[in-house]
Amino acid sequence: MDSMNSRRASEPAIVAIGGGTGLSTMLRGLKKYSKNITAIVTVADDGGGSGVLRDELNMPPPGDIRNCLQALANTEPTMADLLNYRFTLGSLKGQSFGNLFLAALNGMSDSFDQAVMKMSEVLAITGRVLPVSNENIWLVAEFDDGTEVVGESVIAHHKAVHDRTIKRVRLIPDCPAALPASIRAIEEADLIVLGPGSLYTSIIPNLLVDGVAEAVCESDAVKLYIMNVMTQDGETEGYTGADHIRALQKHAGSRLFSLCLANSMELPEEVLARYKLWGAEQTVLDADAIAQLGVELITAPVADVRDGLVRHHPHMLAREIMRIFLEQSPTRIYRQK
Amino acid sequence: MDSMNSRRASEPAIVAIGGGTGLSTMLRGLKKYSKNITAIVTVADDGGGSGVLRDELNMPPPGDIRNCLQALANTEPTMADLLNYRFTLGSLKGQSFGNLFLAALNGMSDSFDQAVMKMSEVLAITGRVLPVSNENIWLVAEFDDGTEVVGESVIAHHKAVHDRTIKRVRLIPDCPAALPASIRAIEEADLIVLGPGSLYTSIIPNLLVDGVAEAVCESDAVKLYIMNVMTQDGETEGYTGADHIRALQKHAGSRLFSLCLANSMELPEEVLARYKLWGAEQTVLDADAIAQLGVELITAPVADVRDGLVRHHPHMLAREIMRIFLEQSPTRIYRQK
Repeated sequence: MDSMNSRRASEPAIVAIGGGTGLSTMLRGLKKYSKNITAIVTVADDGGGSGVLRDELNMPPPGDIRNCLQALANTEPTMADLLNYRFTLGSLKGQSFGNLFLAALNGMSDSFDQAVMKMSEVLAITGRVLPVSNENIWLVAEFDDGTEVVGESVIAHHKAVHDRTIKRVRLIPDCPAALPASIRAIEEADLIVLGPGSLYTSIIPNLLVDGVAEAVCESDAVKLYIMNVMTQDGETEGYTGADHIRALQKHAGSRLFSLCLANSMELPEEVLARYKLWGAEQTVLDADAIAQLGVELITAPVADVRDGLVRHHPHMLAREIMRIFLEQSPTRIYRQK
Repeated sequence: MDSMNSRRASEPAIVAIGGGTGLSTMLRGLKKYSKNITAIVTVADDGGGSGVLRDELNMPPPGDIRNCLQALANTEPTMADLLNYRFTLGSLKGQSFGNLFLAALNGMSDSFDQAVMKMSEVLAITGRVLPVSNENIWLVAEFDDGTEVVGESVIAHHKAVHDRTIKRVRLIPDCPAALPASIRAIEEADLIVLGPGSLYTSIIPNLLVDGVAEAVCESDAVKLYIMNVMTQDGETEGYTGADHIRALQKHAGSRLFSLCLANSMELPEEVLARYKLWGAEQTVLDADAIAQLGVELITAPVADVRDGLVRHHPHMLAREIMRIFLEQSPTRIYRQK
């Protein structure tokens, strides 16, 4: 890995696509290997503090973007603590200060991506964080009984209560414009990483924005999907590894990626038992079915248990991603942009 | 003035006591002359965005402190714009981002003054800003008909509606503890400036905090009161210069200060006519009455009109304050702290 760090001038251009805590976890690890990172982040969330700001201020939901900015920040500890602070009383209860920070910058700016850029400056981040679109996007899930549910925050609930399967997700508006810089970053990438993150609510929404899936499919970068360690109740329960990949290909084409990294670390029985109560289990890696989808499965110990929760480990995950990248492109000369 | 700037090691220790926009205006000018500035700021406000946060988060009102921090800040333009930003929609409408910033830091800190210190670090301010007390202070006005009104935000309204005169103000709790650092700053000051600011709601509340008036009275620093250019409806209407000084002495003793700086700049008739409609007029400088109170009146052009409003001018005011200070202490060796 030292050879990576010493090659500043030709650090690989990495694009990470997703949202939620999974993506920000990975970014914490990846920033050790390249300063040329672009995180492309979904803006379809409508729950929690983000949802409140979205409703009240008519702005894209800031939460996922904020998490990524914090993961890439190089700022003093006070500022880091401050961005994480959640108010505990009054009408601000539960609201994160980091969200309000981005909301204020958005109020001062002509567009959301400009606000994100200003926050990036204040936090002196490594790399870039780009909202996938400046448009106000809603996520719609079509279930197998024909019903449709609008809004990320209610989709999982609906699925769990009615025990239905998500057939497809789409966006309102139908084909929102991508941020041109997002498309350009994908076109110029040496390595594109999809996920980790919730399949239908963090990863696929990005791929439905105009031009994003096409740009990824056409790219000759090393393209890697990070498989979820656990299934998610209300979203992917019962899904095998191949089911995850099938859903991605159905929404965005079969040329989206040819590599998949999945966790091989054994997880403690008592943790798995608790997850079972939550309707989640370890994703079954059906290697043959995955191979039939044209995807090479690579397994490595990239997850562990923190505070009783199964999580990707930032540094183990990043190290493995970079190992795969170097292996897949031994003679690659990083493009001079 | 160049001699001041070159004497870094022995810059005069300046303490400015007050609140409101007047104080922060002066600080913008004074920071050019000394890095050793301590602003001691009232925390009795209960109106506007500060009042909302005070109510909801049970914290001291942040607004006056925030204005002073901004006046002394040495930060990038984005951060300065950000702190000034006011939300325009939703439940945050009218709230200043700077207030929320201080509120979040307060939630993270053991006491309000620690929050102010953390914000001072983030903003890289010149000098220090200290809340006069960490206690939750309410301002009470006693009127000449015996009625009492609690809360800075309603005092002016009550006075205006009932056409009564404020006899005295006091605090609840009766004698709140001062921040020890505030008292120490006063004891170590070479120059103490009272105001500019609203007489009953910005300046006197500081002097009612335990030990503050005593420390100022006992100090042998150059002590200067900045006279309000205009009277204020509901607070000081009809007050001459001597009336202002009499009110200060009544609340805090006759040894509070021996110098008073008042504006001599002529103000345009049309501006004065507009102020008259608001129940305010230029403060009449009754020099003989002021002299009888043991105070030397100094006049200089230190105010002008901005956006149709009469305001102290930061640089003219600061220059005149420093001129007076040097004149009053020609052989003073600034104490080595």
